[in-house]
Amino acid sequence: MSAGRPAVFDRSLETLAPEGLAAHQWRRFHAMAREVLAGNSFVRSKWQAAGVSSADDLRGWDDFRRLPFTVKRELAADQAAHPPFGTNLTYPLERYVRVHQTSGTTGTPIRWLETPESWAWWARCWAMVLAGAGVTPADRVFFPFSFGLFVGFWGGFEGARALGALAIPAGGLDSPTRLALMEALGVTVLVCTPSYALHLVETARERGLDPRKLPVRTTIHAGEPGAGIPSVRTRIEDAWGARAFDHAGMTEVGAYSYECAEQAGLHVNEAEYIAEVVDPGTGEPARDGELVLTNLGRVGSPAIRYRTGDRVRLAEAPCPCGRTFRRLDGGIRGRLDDMLIVRGINVFPAAIEEVVRRFPAIDEFQVEVFRDGELDEVRVLVELEDPSGVRPIQEAFRQTFGIRLQVAAVPPKSLPRFELKARRVVRR
Amino acid sequence: MSAGRPAVFDRSLETLAPEGLAAHQWRRFHAMAREVLAGNSFVRSKWQAAGVSSADDLRGWDDFRRLPFTVKRELAADQAAHPPFGTNLTYPLERYVRVHQTSGTTGTPIRWLETPESWAWWARCWAMVLAGAGVTPADRVFFPFSFGLFVGFWGGFEGARALGALAIPAGGLDSPTRLALMEALGVTVLVCTPSYALHLVETARERGLDPRKLPVRTTIHAGEPGAGIPSVRTRIEDAWGARAFDHAGMTEVGAYSYECAEQAGLHVNEAEYIAEVVDPGTGEPARDGELVLTNLGRVGSPAIRYRTGDRVRLAEAPCPCGRTFRRLDGGIRGRLDDMLIVRGINVFPAAIEEVVRRFPAIDEFQVEVFRDGELDEVRVLVELEDPSGVRPIQEAFRQTFGIRLQVAAVPPKSLPRFELKARRVVRR
Repeated sequence: MSAGRPAVFDRSLETLAPEGLAAHQWRRFHAMAREVLAGNSFVRSKWQAAGVSSADDLRGWDDFRRLPFTVKRELAADQAAHPPFGTNLTYPLERYVRVHQTSGTTGTPIRWLETPESWAWWARCWAMVLAGAGVTPADRVFFPFSFGLFVGFWGGFEGARALGALAIPAGGLDSPTRLALMEALGVTVLVCTPSYALHLVETARERGLDPRKLPVRTTIHAGEPGAGIPSVRTRIEDAWGARAFDHAGMTEVGAYSYECAEQAGLHVNEAEYIAEVVDPGTGEPARDGELVLTNLGRVGSPAIRYRTGDRVRLAEAPCPCGRTFRRLDGGIRGRLDDMLIVRGINVFPAAIEEVVRRFPAIDEFQVEVFRDGELDEVRVLVELEDPSGVRPIQEAFRQTFGIRLQVAAVPPKSLPRFELKARRVVRR
Repeated sequence: MSAGRPAVFDRSLETLAPEGLAAHQWRRFHAMAREVLAGNSFVRSKWQAAGVSSADDLRGWDDFRRLPFTVKRELAADQAAHPPFGTNLTYPLERYVRVHQTSGTTGTPIRWLETPESWAWWARCWAMVLAGAGVTPADRVFFPFSFGLFVGFWGGFEGARALGALAIPAGGLDSPTRLALMEALGVTVLVCTPSYALHLVETARERGLDPRKLPVRTTIHAGEPGAGIPSVRTRIEDAWGARAFDHAGMTEVGAYSYECAEQAGLHVNEAEYIAEVVDPGTGEPARDGELVLTNLGRVGSPAIRYRTGDRVRLAEAPCPCGRTFRRLDGGIRGRLDDMLIVRGINVFPAAIEEVVRRFPAIDEFQVEVFRDGELDEVRVLVELEDPSGVRPIQEAFRQTFGIRLQVAAVPPKSLPRFELKARRVVRR
């Protein structure tokens, strides 16, 4: 990628004008609808209840927007009633070659099956994430990830291979061993959660190593909103001497977004997804609300008008990178079910993290939530050697939220560390 | 697969007559030699020293047999001199998409790079292993394996997908969670080391579960000679209510062998490998000796006349399954560097295991080796509640080896358990 000229993975797709993009999406959606209606009893019964029993009933976007939303608890109930894989399957079980399971952060894990085609589609979507961050076949991409049933960075691993980069699997190893491997193998790209990138930094420093001396030039993050939070991104970039890129995806819908070299929010991969933003209460279109996604390349187990539970805001201006895919300003701004209401003020954990990460002395923190009638009360525990450091943090919270939050210092290394998604909000 | 009719993965290859097979191998070897000589400085310098500087110098099998052997310490020295990947590379680094590292059971780990083509070749070789064991697209294949740098069951995982079966990755989980997943997902095929299959049985029984009640009908093993040792195989089959299949492969050469439904030793995949058996001392052809392999599908990082260190014996008779690929009678009979010399008698750890596993009360054992001048002295620790059980084991050793071995009872659960390759021989 030459300086000043952003890498575009597939120019013909990524720079389509809105009408061309809509036509591309409609063509793919309609072909998928035909196949799904023929074989997928979960989708068929939902659509029939909404008056759609044939793909011919779908004549345009107005019809699309009348299709019912899909929500996670329907899928969970379906899998409970039809174990182990449920009925959101377009083909016989023999056609599927992989299975994944959600991380379980929000309730019952849901299983998802992949056909060879949908798994190749995952790899393609992730190759776009890597290409957006400037990864090339010359890169050595490190995945410190437990390759289990949670899809996590599996897709990234396949995507690195699809792109032609060297994909390095580092499951089942402790952090010091992983750091040693990164050094020995000359790793240039690190793919992990923001929390784990910071945990590796801690581990390195405990051993007298400076992560900036490693050849890592790019880090790519998912699993938490972290890399989209400016103070977290800055902390990761400073510690690694690298550029940190955000990505958001979900087991249920796939790897739907990526950052480009401009790093101005997350582009939705509109070649592979139909994205809507709706008011979480009414389901009506909104600029700031819940992200609703339909994927176009996972015909065997689709997500159609899936309510992600992610709070996003659509960016207004086109991206300077030249891509026409719409952007989510600030990435994922929080999970709707994460929202805390403290003395009448909406407080998202991501906003708390943005404040805490501005203070370099704090390596880890935790948000304790107490219930006070209908409202939440919050206490933020921060790892601090010197308790007098609490005061400026309180002041920063007051400026951000307009209310006082309790802040308490706890000893360094006393709070849990996380390899995958961090769980820093604790309900007491 | 219909009863009585063995599954053949690719009849045209697996039943080639010897001349056809030799011609197939020669064609592939010669094409590979041309490409390797052009790009691979490690091979080029070895061959030049042996008088071969062009593929045209290779006119037939006599020339092949004049090519130098490759041994592990050469590769280790090459990688130490040219870190991190050494010079046994036919293409520029940009062409490689995966890296693996030997398990380190025997010395310094060696790294091995894969191109997209060689990784697809791994999947194909393993698909043959699975097909040999009767696995079909209807199967759900479970991989309780830490997906790290050790290639281990990575190839099997890719092979299951290549075959169209459901490949279930179970890295980063403990044994009780894995058992619960096997039950929840209706697993029909388990792929792991023999030791881990037995460890899962112990774990199940501690929880009051009977592994025979799970739908597992086939187990496939590698990493240790276990599944080729009759008493170990019987124990696994009885505990799981399944048929246990053996497989042998190596990071350095790939997945070179498989069992067919006859389970009469390991077939060498001669479509993808040239196999020789040599006297370990002289390097001359032998029926019972060291296995030497040349792989034909890993042009980017080949192993040519590689001394595996595995002790094998070629079977005489053709296999009733109809495949013409030669068989290793009894599978891998031991590692040459594992051999113990006890009072002048050669004792392989695999032979000790064969005896110990005949005693169902023993869940785990360990071989302590003491040096006595040039000879080894051995003490076998067996987990036994009742120390009087030691006597019949001693008697069985005496009958097998013609000498007395020390046997000592240790408390149940006191010896280590192994997820990957067991290390049961301990030098004191």
